[in-house]
Amino acid sequence: MAFEDYIAACNNHDPDKYRPFLVSGIPVGNVRHDIAEALSGHDAVLVEADGLRLDDNLTDFDSRSRVLDKLASTLAAEGLVPKLRGEMYPVKTGFEAEALAEIDRAAVPGFGLRAYGVHLNGYVRRADGGIDLWIARRASDRTICPGMLDNMVAGGQPIGLGLMENVIKECGEEANVPPKLAATAQPVGAITYMLETEWGLKPDTMFCYDLELPADFTPSNTDGEVETFYLWPASQVAEIVRDTFDFKFNCNLVIIDFLIRHGLIPPETPGYVSLIRGLRK
Amino acid sequence: MAFEDYIAACNNHDPDKYRPFLVSGIPVGNVRHDIAEALSGHDAVLVEADGLRLDDNLTDFDSRSRVLDKLASTLAAEGLVPKLRGEMYPVKTGFEAEALAEIDRAAVPGFGLRAYGVHLNGYVRRADGGIDLWIARRASDRTICPGMLDNMVAGGQPIGLGLMENVIKECGEEANVPPKLAATAQPVGAITYMLETEWGLKPDTMFCYDLELPADFTPSNTDGEVETFYLWPASQVAEIVRDTFDFKFNCNLVIIDFLIRHGLIPPETPGYVSLIRGLRK
Repeated sequence: MAFEDYIAACNNHDPDKYRPFLVSGIPVGNVRHDIAEALSGHDAVLVEADGLRLDDNLTDFDSRSRVLDKLASTLAAEGLVPKLRGEMYPVKTGFEAEALAEIDRAAVPGFGLRAYGVHLNGYVRRADGGIDLWIARRASDRTICPGMLDNMVAGGQPIGLGLMENVIKECGEEANVPPKLAATAQPVGAITYMLETEWGLKPDTMFCYDLELPADFTPSNTDGEVETFYLWPASQVAEIVRDTFDFKFNCNLVIIDFLIRHGLIPPETPGYVSLIRGLRK
Repeated sequence: MAFEDYIAACNNHDPDKYRPFLVSGIPVGNVRHDIAEALSGHDAVLVEADGLRLDDNLTDFDSRSRVLDKLASTLAAEGLVPKLRGEMYPVKTGFEAEALAEIDRAAVPGFGLRAYGVHLNGYVRRADGGIDLWIARRASDRTICPGMLDNMVAGGQPIGLGLMENVIKECGEEANVPPKLAATAQPVGAITYMLETEWGLKPDTMFCYDLELPADFTPSNTDGEVETFYLWPASQVAEIVRDTFDFKFNCNLVIIDFLIRHGLIPPETPGYVSLIRGLRK
């Protein structure tokens, strides 16, 4: 196995299975044909062969959000999207764009909307100059990837929260990092991928952070999402990423980016440049 | 002006002006039509409307290199490429690929061959946690970008030298960095661009390195390529990059990548993700 395999695994979609999803005539996502067809007959949505359109007469955030809420409920009732979570994500054309509407997080892949999240690698610089990484094992009752390895802290970006606010919040919930320490997390870039899942399409953007931790800090989980934390040498983490599917699919990419930026995947590695490009598909 | 402008300036080429250049039937570059036509009548090269081909009967490195040397001399004599430099670059399909031939560095853009180089940002971590960057000003007698600002150390990747060997060599020549200190340079990624120049096409790959320097180290030039060095706060360097064309075209990109990785261009910056993607065109 090679690092490239994990990038390929996160970029597996077949465009022919989807049609554009338009809000106010603007393409904001891609919806699988069977999901689009399941919405025919609904008010305020036009199911066309070349696209699924929210009625252009819905001119404000609230009215669009109300319709999307009904559509999401329909899809959840039919088992086409998972149980709704009551956590709202923005519908927008890009990260800095104004939100056209909001929608339940569970229905975001159903409409193929771009989602944003923060992923943080907590690390400790050893006395010998090497790097140890804090790695989380996901709780066994999680819906997605139960029991798999994960970045120390990660979370989706809900509507109305700044990126650093989210980092500090998730650091507290997932790893019990004090806010003052969490605020020293350093933004280091972003990764994009487009993953086909049973619940639809995930065109995701992960904003990446490095958090250097003191040797005497030990993370502990407070929200039940993490079963345990490990402190492993970065070289060992690199081997786990390269040789196994133990990490949650997208967390592999966050670790690969970390390893490249810290010189632990050196430029002499075959496929180095395409690996770097692959992280921004 | 915006950071994106410097990425656009490095990715300005019009594909219609070029035809593929093939060695052993393999596309390795792109040659401008007038340069291709200037080579008609030469032995061992076929000038066709849809490509310039080195004779497929040239089956080894040496015979191909001898023909390329003649072609390069012809182009130099006609003023279509600059004066040859006697420094040889490999002709290959990718960084790890075997070299099919070698060619004078001055003729590399003339055939639109991919070139590789190392770029190093030397930096000092201040007591207040901030970062100062060592910036070079190029000598006023340089052919390319005389007097412009540059990364502390940078150099093309000649045939037969490893990347880290080149980093150490260039660190010594350009900034008088002792080999032991230079060897602590950390590889941090790669940047690609494709620039149209008067001398042809430059599809370049820059391997990037960070070198943390002690506060009492001062670089000094030994090969005449640098006029002077400055130690400036990274925030000031960011302003120079964003607001001026003072830096050599491709060095802007290396600084932008540094600023992103060190959190000095934060993810809240408009166009952040497209900036990151733009560095790997």
